[in-house]
Amino acid sequence: MVSAVRIAPTRAIRAMNLLRTVQYTHPPSCPCHGNPSHHHHHQPSTGLLAHAKRNLQRNYATPVDISRQKEYAFEMAASSIRFGHGVTKEVGMDFKNMGAKRVCVVTDSTVRHLDAMKQVIEGLTREGVEFTIYDGCRVEPKDSSIKHAIEFAKPYQPDAFLAVGGGSVIDTAKLMNLYTCYPNAEFLDFVNAPLGKGLPIDKPLKPLIAVPTTAGTGSETTGTAIFDLVSKRAKTGIAHRNLKPTLGICDPLNTRTMPSAVHASSGLDVLCHSLESWTAIPYFERIPRPTNPINRPAYQGANPISDIFSLQALRSTVQYLPRAVKDPEDHEAQSQMLLAATLAGVGFGNAGVHLCHGQNPGYKHSGYEVDTPIIPHGVSVAVSAPAVFRFTGPSNPERHLAAAEAFGVDISNVKRESAGEVLGEALSKFLADLGDQPKGLKDLGFKKEHLDDLVEGTIPQRRVLMLAPGLAEEVNEEREQLKALFEDAMTH
Amino acid sequence: MVSAVRIAPTRAIRAMNLLRTVQYTHPPSCPCHGNPSHHHHHQPSTGLLAHAKRNLQRNYATPVDISRQKEYAFEMAASSIRFGHGVTKEVGMDFKNMGAKRVCVVTDSTVRHLDAMKQVIEGLTREGVEFTIYDGCRVEPKDSSIKHAIEFAKPYQPDAFLAVGGGSVIDTAKLMNLYTCYPNAEFLDFVNAPLGKGLPIDKPLKPLIAVPTTAGTGSETTGTAIFDLVSKRAKTGIAHRNLKPTLGICDPLNTRTMPSAVHASSGLDVLCHSLESWTAIPYFERIPRPTNPINRPAYQGANPISDIFSLQALRSTVQYLPRAVKDPEDHEAQSQMLLAATLAGVGFGNAGVHLCHGQNPGYKHSGYEVDTPIIPHGVSVAVSAPAVFRFTGPSNPERHLAAAEAFGVDISNVKRESAGEVLGEALSKFLADLGDQPKGLKDLGFKKEHLDDLVEGTIPQRRVLMLAPGLAEEVNEEREQLKALFEDAMTH
Repeated sequence: MVSAVRIAPTRAIRAMNLLRTVQYTHPPSCPCHGNPSHHHHHQPSTGLLAHAKRNLQRNYATPVDISRQKEYAFEMAASSIRFGHGVTKEVGMDFKNMGAKRVCVVTDSTVRHLDAMKQVIEGLTREGVEFTIYDGCRVEPKDSSIKHAIEFAKPYQPDAFLAVGGGSVIDTAKLMNLYTCYPNAEFLDFVNAPLGKGLPIDKPLKPLIAVPTTAGTGSETTGTAIFDLVSKRAKTGIAHRNLKPTLGICDPLNTRTMPSAVHASSGLDVLCHSLESWTAIPYFERIPRPTNPINRPAYQGANPISDIFSLQALRSTVQYLPRAVKDPEDHEAQSQMLLAATLAGVGFGNAGVHLCHGQNPGYKHSGYEVDTPIIPHGVSVAVSAPAVFRFTGPSNPERHLAAAEAFGVDISNVKRESAGEVLGEALSKFLADLGDQPKGLKDLGFKKEHLDDLVEGTIPQRRVLMLAPGLAEEVNEEREQLKALFEDAMTH
Repeated sequence: MVSAVRIAPTRAIRAMNLLRTVQYTHPPSCPCHGNPSHHHHHQPSTGLLAHAKRNLQRNYATPVDISRQKEYAFEMAASSIRFGHGVTKEVGMDFKNMGAKRVCVVTDSTVRHLDAMKQVIEGLTREGVEFTIYDGCRVEPKDSSIKHAIEFAKPYQPDAFLAVGGGSVIDTAKLMNLYTCYPNAEFLDFVNAPLGKGLPIDKPLKPLIAVPTTAGTGSETTGTAIFDLVSKRAKTGIAHRNLKPTLGICDPLNTRTMPSAVHASSGLDVLCHSLESWTAIPYFERIPRPTNPINRPAYQGANPISDIFSLQALRSTVQYLPRAVKDPEDHEAQSQMLLAATLAGVGFGNAGVHLCHGQNPGYKHSGYEVDTPIIPHGVSVAVSAPAVFRFTGPSNPERHLAAAEAFGVDISNVKRESAGEVLGEALSKFLADLGDQPKGLKDLGFKKEHLDDLVEGTIPQRRVLMLAPGLAEEVNEEREQLKALFEDAMTH
């Protein structure tokens, strides 16, 4: 009954073996990275070296030994996660346990009236923990709304924060925490370079507990906060491990209030988080290697631990998102999507995202006018996903095939050259089956004359573009690639 | 080329689908757990309810509504992990970054002379961080050796700790940290009940960075510290999330010093960590539900996040341990085993272990005399593994089949009733192929007359036995089961 030899490689077994292989295609086991005295030449796979060279040449004027400049380590950090139906009511005890005496509760005007906030208020009150509520968070926060929130928090002098809401609320709370802990910092000190100074957060912040009310952002596990820097007309943010919440409380009862369209758009965000982090360049091809570990970015490229999270989140999303969208009473699917959102958060929070999130017509960062001004974030990142993965396919066909297989595609007879095409097709079909999704940028009101604006809005997103596999080294060539990508994304 | 419909279920595809199903066989989506006002009867799967009832009846005198007493949430916590060849040398910068001024470096007399310690000392010195070295840790620590270490640390008043070594060193450092942060506590205050008071650790400790030099324990990610309480002749420990290191620095260069036999024994520890946590009872069948989240144990039973880690660690161990043992120059396999050890650490650190680690002839806790007094921990936990999983198989055949499949067994024609048998056989074959492993307790010098001692040494391990599926509710019946299990474990 037991066979020690692996069974004959049927096409499905081959697929499964492929998946295992893919997860460790480039193990971080080259001793030359860690031990310069044993350095010897080794041959990175095609495309990756080119990518490394290109990034290097962007950063350094003279050629250097590239392998010595490449990253050699990865670091995984995630908030603790508590998951369970009704677990929101424990949060009062958590603050009491940590000895918090003044909690700043952060939410928005909608969530304020939902059951999640009721549970939170009852919990804090029951335990006799003093708190104040800030409900001025806005969707797609701007620097002005963030600063407003910070000005609220500073005089209250909270010793802990509690965020109850979607990604915008949680991100705002992270920044309230940051700037009350650094009361004399300039706002731009910690903002991602080159727009801000990109300083590392060099000390622990106050405890922050995040209670997500959507299943999309994953912000409850990440050290990232995103906002619009209006003066620069740019979507940017602050990213550092020390920004991450202490604890994410994932309570599936809190996402039952989402309308079907919000299930869809937030689930599409999860889909892109998982696909982008799974296909991002591997961490050991990222340049430059940080000289101090505090400068190792959270968006560090795909690594063996982020891979586990990203792939599991992708599989769950394929399985449960259609059910969660179609049946408002399918609480199992909703619950699994909340878990998937968090898993994807751990994945992309430690590996990064790239072209779907780098381009983002919903962000309107280049100020163009379109017919539908408000596009849900998840919809806008997913609309060009088929074109994105057609573009990135050649950089790592195995990973794109593994992703296609997660969509139920039989990949046993698919050629490596078709990997991007096949994944793009699977994505188009998934989006079509989900229903009510734009079939490309055209459906969002974009026309040919907007292509250049879309490209110029994407080019400054270096922090994510550096993780995109397959982009050309020369910026005009990159422009052409992005323009072709957006043209491809017009319809799918 | 793209097929939206899943392809015809070949046996391998069925296996893969099974795996997906298994991971969410019992999703935590029953609303009655979180919302008593909507309580309605639901039917737990056979065996689990019996298990829950049994545990309950042990704890409560009068029958109560069991579903209200069962756990309804899980909490995942893990240290941050940095992984890379040569990454040990960054540790000086880490302490400088956190502003540490007096670091207590904890190691043992062997590791003190290895390259890992050289890197550490150079790193701290380069950054001008003051430190002292305690190298008195002993393998399989006793309460006396722990207390000795604590007495060393207290007067030094360190503001951070650095552990460099195997599990014994890291565990000792955790407890030095704990008792210097609670200088007035009695030693038994935090020790697991019923031997100690089992008090929760109710505040954050000082930063602790752990640099493992073996690939087995996973202690760099867990909140557990294990030692012998000599006066009680018991293996026990302290377990709480706040005990976990701040950061685990996993540097594959540091495990190259392990002899082949240590690769084998520490790898077998990883194997059992992953198999036991994967097959532990699910968290939502654990009783009692904690009334305060601070009392939710780290060993909480299998959950959807620990599952991902445990299964991945199992697959990696099956793939890489034989290579790591057989070829001292196979640095890729060694590196993958270090990663697997850490992944398994996250898995069992949040789900728990059960019968392999609950029984442990190497522990000698009941004081019997055997021919081979020193048995490496990993060998002693693995020796009865085939018998253990034969015993636990019926409790969850799907998970046991999935585990057997990770060993390369073709499970497509295996009946559910044979799941334990098949996994046991796969394990026996794996151990035999590894070489130099005892073929059962007999090879360790145990005879029939030791069976009762083995049983009585296991019975007090409630914290892990409560996670073992399939044990009888009545203690004499449990004794009979364990006796039969050890008899089965005599030879394999």
